[in-house]
Amino acid sequence: MSVVDPRLSINQATIKYADLATALRVTADAGIEAIGLWREPVQEVGLTTAAAMLTDSGLRFTTHCRAGFFTMPEGPARRSSIDDNRVAIDEAAALAVAGAPGSTAILVLVAGGLPEGSRDIVGARERVRDAIGELAPHAKAAGVTLAIEPLHPMFASDRCVVSTLGQALDIAADFEPEVVGATVDTFHIFWDPDVLPAIERAGREGRIATYQVCDWRTPLPEDVLLSRHYPGDGVIDFASLTRAVEATGYDRDIEVEIFNADIWAADPAEVVRRTAEAFGGAVTPHLSGARTPTA
Amino acid sequence: MSVVDPRLSINQATIKYADLATALRVTADAGIEAIGLWREPVQEVGLTTAAAMLTDSGLRFTTHCRAGFFTMPEGPARRSSIDDNRVAIDEAAALAVAGAPGSTAILVLVAGGLPEGSRDIVGARERVRDAIGELAPHAKAAGVTLAIEPLHPMFASDRCVVSTLGQALDIAADFEPEVVGATVDTFHIFWDPDVLPAIERAGREGRIATYQVCDWRTPLPEDVLLSRHYPGDGVIDFASLTRAVEATGYDRDIEVEIFNADIWAADPAEVVRRTAEAFGGAVTPHLSGARTPTA
Repeated sequence: MSVVDPRLSINQATIKYADLATALRVTADAGIEAIGLWREPVQEVGLTTAAAMLTDSGLRFTTHCRAGFFTMPEGPARRSSIDDNRVAIDEAAALAVAGAPGSTAILVLVAGGLPEGSRDIVGARERVRDAIGELAPHAKAAGVTLAIEPLHPMFASDRCVVSTLGQALDIAADFEPEVVGATVDTFHIFWDPDVLPAIERAGREGRIATYQVCDWRTPLPEDVLLSRHYPGDGVIDFASLTRAVEATGYDRDIEVEIFNADIWAADPAEVVRRTAEAFGGAVTPHLSGARTPTA
Repeated sequence: MSVVDPRLSINQATIKYADLATALRVTADAGIEAIGLWREPVQEVGLTTAAAMLTDSGLRFTTHCRAGFFTMPEGPARRSSIDDNRVAIDEAAALAVAGAPGSTAILVLVAGGLPEGSRDIVGARERVRDAIGELAPHAKAAGVTLAIEPLHPMFASDRCVVSTLGQALDIAADFEPEVVGATVDTFHIFWDPDVLPAIERAGREGRIATYQVCDWRTPLPEDVLLSRHYPGDGVIDFASLTRAVEATGYDRDIEVEIFNADIWAADPAEVVRRTAEAFGGAVTPHLSGARTPTA
């Protein structure tokens, strides 16, 4: 069995159909030290129980996924979204306390797309900034970092109007770095001609809340949301991106988050094992102080 | 019958399965004044014949589509591509002469994706710049403007490593504006948080070779290449983009270029009529000196 990189964190979405107990067990059993959780499986058992299960697992907690979806104009739906984001902040804070030492209280935010019938992407983007402004005091009080995630521009209209790391940083710039940062996910930003300077800027401004890795490959599947692959199975240059992140001084855990129907259909223990192997091959060699995995 | 906007040009890809004779006929019959052609249907009848047919149609010629695809490393395939691009330049020059007064000699360039097995998008982008450097003298001698087309980032790995208008302008900056410009296509750039300043810059630097319009709508079809729609049928804000282009002083024809399996399957005369109607509704109101179409 090869050595598992101690900085690898399994994002629970990679084993979407595993319940919380299974996700924690297969991750720990694989010798992986950290996990990022999703709200739905946590809520399925209740936050208090989830926190106790996390503590028992001995795993570090890396991110809580995900909140956001606040591009709609003022009204009951927006109020409901803001309220739900506050709940998510509290969940992230509780899980970070429950995780092993080195856990981080990070809430990933996906902004949301254009409201139904709207063509005003500029206005939607302004409402993202406004929403984060509303949430920032609560996040600060809870000790949670809001991690704005730019999504690939193919999702700009229906899922996330924040499309580049630079744009996420422009929004974050209004807030303290410990309160609002960015999610740096290779899949969403590898194509950006400005990706390396944007990562350097994110580091300089103290905004890299989390670094997430998975790969891009074409042709895209019918549901483009599910077009994420194991690191190394596609065309993303993990060397340049990972070195750029490391060069900023980022030294925390790195999540693998894969949405892929075939991977979801596989045995979660096998998926976790395969993820560790893929990470070791594609990402580990580019980490500071990287060790050569031994057999 | 409503008035057809005199600046509307039908890009032949919108009626992909029409041969050149049909494309010219249905366009002229609809009262449209201009057309952008594709290389394959032109080559099907031969350049000399195509030029004569274009002259007979009385239509202005707006762009020649398309060349490029020169991201591969040095070798026979790259030489072959460069040679073919030179042929395309000559075709564009001949067709511009054959078209009605006001025709423009513009060759649209799609850069190409990552070579098979490569993860080096930075290197591929450098090779685009090198290729345009090789082609620029021939284009200048022929009086043709090379119009670098940034494609939506969902095509960055397999079709076009030029992903933003800003990136296209950075490449073009090494060359004279009359020799190398950019294609401004709403579908590919509407999502860009920097799109309006990029259009302003493109105008200021004299680089808007052609303005093309079609719409974006989700869910994307299985082949994302075919996800283009009639202006007004999706979520693109043609008001802000069109006004930004107009504000630069751009006053030439505007192409509608739609790749869409349903539209391709329809009667080309009906597609052209519907395109004129869609253009009149979504784009015409935002043109300088726009007239209100009358019944």
